[in-house]
Amino acid sequence: MGSAERIRSVAKRVAKWARAGHQVVVVPSAMSGETNRLLGLAGELAPAHIDKSYLREQDMLAATGEQASSALLAIALQAEGMQAISYTGWQVPVRTDSGYTKARIESIDTERIQADLNAGRVVVITGFQGIDGQGHITTLGRGGSDTSALAIAAVLKADECLIFTDVDGVYTTDPRVVPAARRLHSVSFEEMLEMASLGSKVLQIRSVEFAGKYKVPMRVLSSMTPWDIDWAVEASSGTLITFEEDEKMEKAVVSGIAFNRGEAKISVLGVPDTPGVAATILGAVADANIEVDVIIQNISKEGKTDFSFTVGQADYAQALELLREKVAPSLGASEVLGDPSIAKVSIVGIGMRSHVGVASTMFRALSQEGVNIQMISTSEIKTSVVINEKYLELAVRALHTAFGLDKTEQAA
Amino acid sequence: MGSAERIRSVAKRVAKWARAGHQVVVVPSAMSGETNRLLGLAGELAPAHIDKSYLREQDMLAATGEQASSALLAIALQAEGMQAISYTGWQVPVRTDSGYTKARIESIDTERIQADLNAGRVVVITGFQGIDGQGHITTLGRGGSDTSALAIAAVLKADECLIFTDVDGVYTTDPRVVPAARRLHSVSFEEMLEMASLGSKVLQIRSVEFAGKYKVPMRVLSSMTPWDIDWAVEASSGTLITFEEDEKMEKAVVSGIAFNRGEAKISVLGVPDTPGVAATILGAVADANIEVDVIIQNISKEGKTDFSFTVGQADYAQALELLREKVAPSLGASEVLGDPSIAKVSIVGIGMRSHVGVASTMFRALSQEGVNIQMISTSEIKTSVVINEKYLELAVRALHTAFGLDKTEQAA
Repeated sequence: MGSAERIRSVAKRVAKWARAGHQVVVVPSAMSGETNRLLGLAGELAPAHIDKSYLREQDMLAATGEQASSALLAIALQAEGMQAISYTGWQVPVRTDSGYTKARIESIDTERIQADLNAGRVVVITGFQGIDGQGHITTLGRGGSDTSALAIAAVLKADECLIFTDVDGVYTTDPRVVPAARRLHSVSFEEMLEMASLGSKVLQIRSVEFAGKYKVPMRVLSSMTPWDIDWAVEASSGTLITFEEDEKMEKAVVSGIAFNRGEAKISVLGVPDTPGVAATILGAVADANIEVDVIIQNISKEGKTDFSFTVGQADYAQALELLREKVAPSLGASEVLGDPSIAKVSIVGIGMRSHVGVASTMFRALSQEGVNIQMISTSEIKTSVVINEKYLELAVRALHTAFGLDKTEQAA
Repeated sequence: MGSAERIRSVAKRVAKWARAGHQVVVVPSAMSGETNRLLGLAGELAPAHIDKSYLREQDMLAATGEQASSALLAIALQAEGMQAISYTGWQVPVRTDSGYTKARIESIDTERIQADLNAGRVVVITGFQGIDGQGHITTLGRGGSDTSALAIAAVLKADECLIFTDVDGVYTTDPRVVPAARRLHSVSFEEMLEMASLGSKVLQIRSVEFAGKYKVPMRVLSSMTPWDIDWAVEASSGTLITFEEDEKMEKAVVSGIAFNRGEAKISVLGVPDTPGVAATILGAVADANIEVDVIIQNISKEGKTDFSFTVGQADYAQALELLREKVAPSLGASEVLGDPSIAKVSIVGIGMRSHVGVASTMFRALSQEGVNIQMISTSEIKTSVVINEKYLELAVRALHTAFGLDKTEQAA
């Protein structure tokens, strides 16, 4: 939400749903740029040693953005002729722990919200924030508004939680890479979780986890569609993230192709295959505050094994030096090799559980395009491969076609 | 408060007082322009029929400005190495009635504030806002931050409430009109009340009334002085508004000259001197939502009297037409006269109570300058005259000199 025009358009969309007979609770985000501006000021003023007292004030500050946009939305709804009321996190209240800037929701009272809904009001609730046991304001961290919306939907046992975003749903893969990519009408929670963690930026993984924990049906849809499209059309737009596998699931074995660019690979060769080696290598990396993604250990030969993992490209040089200078000598490793530009491509699908040969279809499709696979990692509903970064687009397109995800007759 | 630089300077000033051993509670205003920007957006979105639901949301919105500046000030204080914590109105809590946008404070809990003060913390409290009996956010209206500060000073039994403004104190009259005007070191509450209601814009009259009700010693001083002047020097700067007449009062009979420009006068001549005439005339004016200032009724001659009052120039034409067309004919008045440009000049001084001849000194000074007095109105501690607007500056300067208020040997 930004200008008065934008707020008015959100209000008209909400009013449309309410007039269609739905009880509606809205959790608006802060106005664009607002929270960043305030936190920028706080950053300029911040004390040298940031402690809990500082984080408490930062939350006090950051919470104002959603409070302002909620009040403005309630006003805009009243201007549309609706009965509307807004509540802050502490007014509901949304109770959280005291983990300032990344608090966890503990409970949400529904009494007040339910009373307003029953009285025919649209209820606007400030997302992203709550109140702790001592009455201090807390915020939930990145993606917090989505988490609030899902939590409120869960406690109210809402039919669905609609998450309006700047994309119109979850796609089989990134349409910028594969023009034939198509929007999924529904996707299982587990698939969404893999796709969120594998680089699909539609939803914060924390929000997806939250929805999964409380089994809240959620729909990702676009805030860019005109507000006056029929509510029933809007209700079936976007992508539904569902927990009812059998009924609503699309039939494809593989639902989507996810990928991460900008990774790098490091291999430590010829290390002794004894307990504690992985911990020594990864412990040193973790101590340097470097996040590791895929980890592979090959089977051992003659008491020696090879150990590989991927890191973000920004951390590559530091990780490589660390291993060559410190870790490898102490382990008696024969060599440390690195590749600064690899990518990870994953196929994701709940159908993989019950279908054999999915991985081999993947490997065959890549081989036909001459893409060499450097690492392989699998889970129950996904198979990831690490490849040279230059083959990324080629690989994603080949897999998208191989698993029948391209538009045309496949589109549901 | 505006930029980070400005907030930092406020923090340094507060830290100086705290380091000198004072327990300090600060009530910051919102950042300049912030509240107006938000309320402007609300105005763009406002519903056609403004009701209590709308005003509730407006308060929810307006309250964010002070919350943000309070959190930022607490952060800046922490950066200065102080222990500091900020509280919203509802966290204190500051309990008010439900008069959204102009709520009245009912009570203030001191437990939390006192505990923090005793623990050595500087306490920052969001002014201008509170919470009503149903847990809704309220705001106190114009001058609300000053009112909050005074109320908190009252309940904490503070030694003094320092009000930092863009002027350095209360003057004997407006220095732009009389360059020889001088700052009063102290002024009685009653005088301040007259001066506030007579057009001195230093303090909202409501804040002065509040201070009077709870006998809070308050000092008006400048936020423009460098933050690092010695606290003890700062502590005796500005103007103290006091309740201890005998000890601290300056010796002058008249403390200041107040004035209002931009008024107009209307006289209804030859109305019957019977009960209900004043009510008929003023009732009609009040029904048209026109505010009346000075009201004078002369003694009657032959059963007839003349009735005069002043209104703001913006309401002059409407009031005149109303009286000529409707009121005068029904009363049988002989004539309705008007003067669209008069001014009111008042001498104010608690010493007038016990000094005779003050009014005649006033009239003589004006007469010596050839200023004709059109109306006279008196109260226990002030005498006001209505004169032609063109003589305003002349009259104010003459009175300022006549009552010995000019700088030089009079300055304490």
